[in-house]
Amino acid sequence: MISVAVNGYGTIGKRVADAIVKQPDMRLIGVVKTSPNYEALMAHRKGIKIYVPQQSIKKFDEAGIPIAGTVEELIKTADIVVDATPNGVGAQYKSIYQQLQKNAIFQGGEKAEVADVSFSALCNYNEALNKKYIRVVSCNTTALLRTICTMGRVGKVEKVRATIVRRAADPKEVKKGPINSLIPDPATVPSHHAKDVNSVIKNLDIATMAVIAPTTLMHMHFLNITLKDKIEKKDVFSVLENTPRIVLVSSKYDVEATAELVEIARDLKRERNDIPEVMIFSDSIYVKDNEIMLMYAVHQESIVVPENIDAIRASMGARSAEESIRITNSSLGILGGYLI
Amino acid sequence: MISVAVNGYGTIGKRVADAIVKQPDMRLIGVVKTSPNYEALMAHRKGIKIYVPQQSIKKFDEAGIPIAGTVEELIKTADIVVDATPNGVGAQYKSIYQQLQKNAIFQGGEKAEVADVSFSALCNYNEALNKKYIRVVSCNTTALLRTICTMGRVGKVEKVRATIVRRAADPKEVKKGPINSLIPDPATVPSHHAKDVNSVIKNLDIATMAVIAPTTLMHMHFLNITLKDKIEKKDVFSVLENTPRIVLVSSKYDVEATAELVEIARDLKRERNDIPEVMIFSDSIYVKDNEIMLMYAVHQESIVVPENIDAIRASMGARSAEESIRITNSSLGILGGYLI
Repeated sequence: MISVAVNGYGTIGKRVADAIVKQPDMRLIGVVKTSPNYEALMAHRKGIKIYVPQQSIKKFDEAGIPIAGTVEELIKTADIVVDATPNGVGAQYKSIYQQLQKNAIFQGGEKAEVADVSFSALCNYNEALNKKYIRVVSCNTTALLRTICTMGRVGKVEKVRATIVRRAADPKEVKKGPINSLIPDPATVPSHHAKDVNSVIKNLDIATMAVIAPTTLMHMHFLNITLKDKIEKKDVFSVLENTPRIVLVSSKYDVEATAELVEIARDLKRERNDIPEVMIFSDSIYVKDNEIMLMYAVHQESIVVPENIDAIRASMGARSAEESIRITNSSLGILGGYLI
Repeated sequence: MISVAVNGYGTIGKRVADAIVKQPDMRLIGVVKTSPNYEALMAHRKGIKIYVPQQSIKKFDEAGIPIAGTVEELIKTADIVVDATPNGVGAQYKSIYQQLQKNAIFQGGEKAEVADVSFSALCNYNEALNKKYIRVVSCNTTALLRTICTMGRVGKVEKVRATIVRRAADPKEVKKGPINSLIPDPATVPSHHAKDVNSVIKNLDIATMAVIAPTTLMHMHFLNITLKDKIEKKDVFSVLENTPRIVLVSSKYDVEATAELVEIARDLKRERNDIPEVMIFSDSIYVKDNEIMLMYAVHQESIVVPENIDAIRASMGARSAEESIRITNSSLGILGGYLI
């Protein structure tokens, strides 16, 4: 059993914590929370042990949420820490992980340099084997890499051009906008996503453009992939239909928008209506000579969860890529093929 | 003087009517309105003569909005009709224009077959000279064509790949959504915009993908243009800086979103805060070998207005492309160069 601590219990941290509990080879030994908010209260009620920074002890006492100890006490007893702290905070924590000689998984909000390797399970699991510090790339980059590496099984990928339409805020974020605007993010090309993809696939010719739209549910990507050789549409389908973590959505049943994907996740009684798979609109797949164009939706809150679980196993040298991905998928109910 | 009737007085019709009034060589002889709503009342108060279909006479009487006659009476006295009726209705009206032997300008909501030529002033004015029926392409296609034909002055355009993020509704449209979703529009590739561009530039290799976002202000386009030969960024800038109807927007003054473009239009006291120019985010212009990538915003309500004015002159054989475009730009205050 791998003893895992989760540092940070927000959007990603709480999902990774829940996912760890479901792994046959992992044990969640506790989570770090800095504020005694509703998420902390719910963690406590679920029986999750909460550890806090020294300066938060009083606040938790006042709020009546029991704590199990301090951050350092938690990390000392862990085999590995999943750092799900806000962007940039992970880098500050790294010295503590180093000092206590613990492996750590960082999130995509950190700079690539924080870790020994940037990680996407379907692309470079083996490269991350036994690495002390692994960085799971961001939600958008995870979706790009999953899709690009999968297309790499259709033919050699020579060039990727992508437009990313980002959700403005997560559903719970009430202080972010815009309400009614499109915001180039940034208004320069390429956006950071291209560089982030290159942190995993070093020499890929990729350029990305990004824009923020006033929606909270999911991102969408519009991909144009050029392969070395001419391909057939059926080969693209055959690879996509057989790759778990990528799911096809047909318009046959009137699924035509991100809101409808989320509605299906709710009807399927998925926890928190999460959709950790890349959701490809199958009707959008367009093949012309050696070019593939397609559209997919990305659930920003949950897509990196399976990658965090695999990164834990890779870092601990616990399993092969194939085994880890299989266990993660089956424990979390992650699909391949068609959504419905 | 060209006597122009405008059939339909909604988003496009009312703007085209106002633009006609400003032309030194045109006279607005009246507009057709079917419902006695606030737009009809304001047309009346501006002194515009309102003509209605037979079956609307009673409604206008009851609403106390005076009318000057019926649609047929208006069209009979016109040299040319700008048809700004809802999508598909223009095709129904065509037989009346034919019967009364009047030239007509149709909008992009009609099928290309309705007209002798699909039109974009910077692309194919000469092709439209003396054509009886001209179709001004839609707002998105107008922006694509303006930009592509302008890039054609930098080098030979070989391939265009574009993602179009569409506004969900116009500001006045209260019955359309979505509020919180992204909707592939459609979830098939290419979207109709590619075909529509091909109605003007016949053999261009173009593929487009489109998605609807919950915003009302402007569309945005993300373009990837491949030229035959390698080019320099400065050549792209030099052509763009010197093409009226295309305006560059720099982030230097913190203009970073469609909402800020509209705010500038309001501060500039533009009528209805209209922005008939293609608004290119200058920082987004990215040149790599023979590839150009860039982002721009498109004001769906007003971008086709100058094209309608030019289409009138082309159809009547009244002016050369250069003259018409110059008169239209100067009468409507249409900019080139930098927005501010």
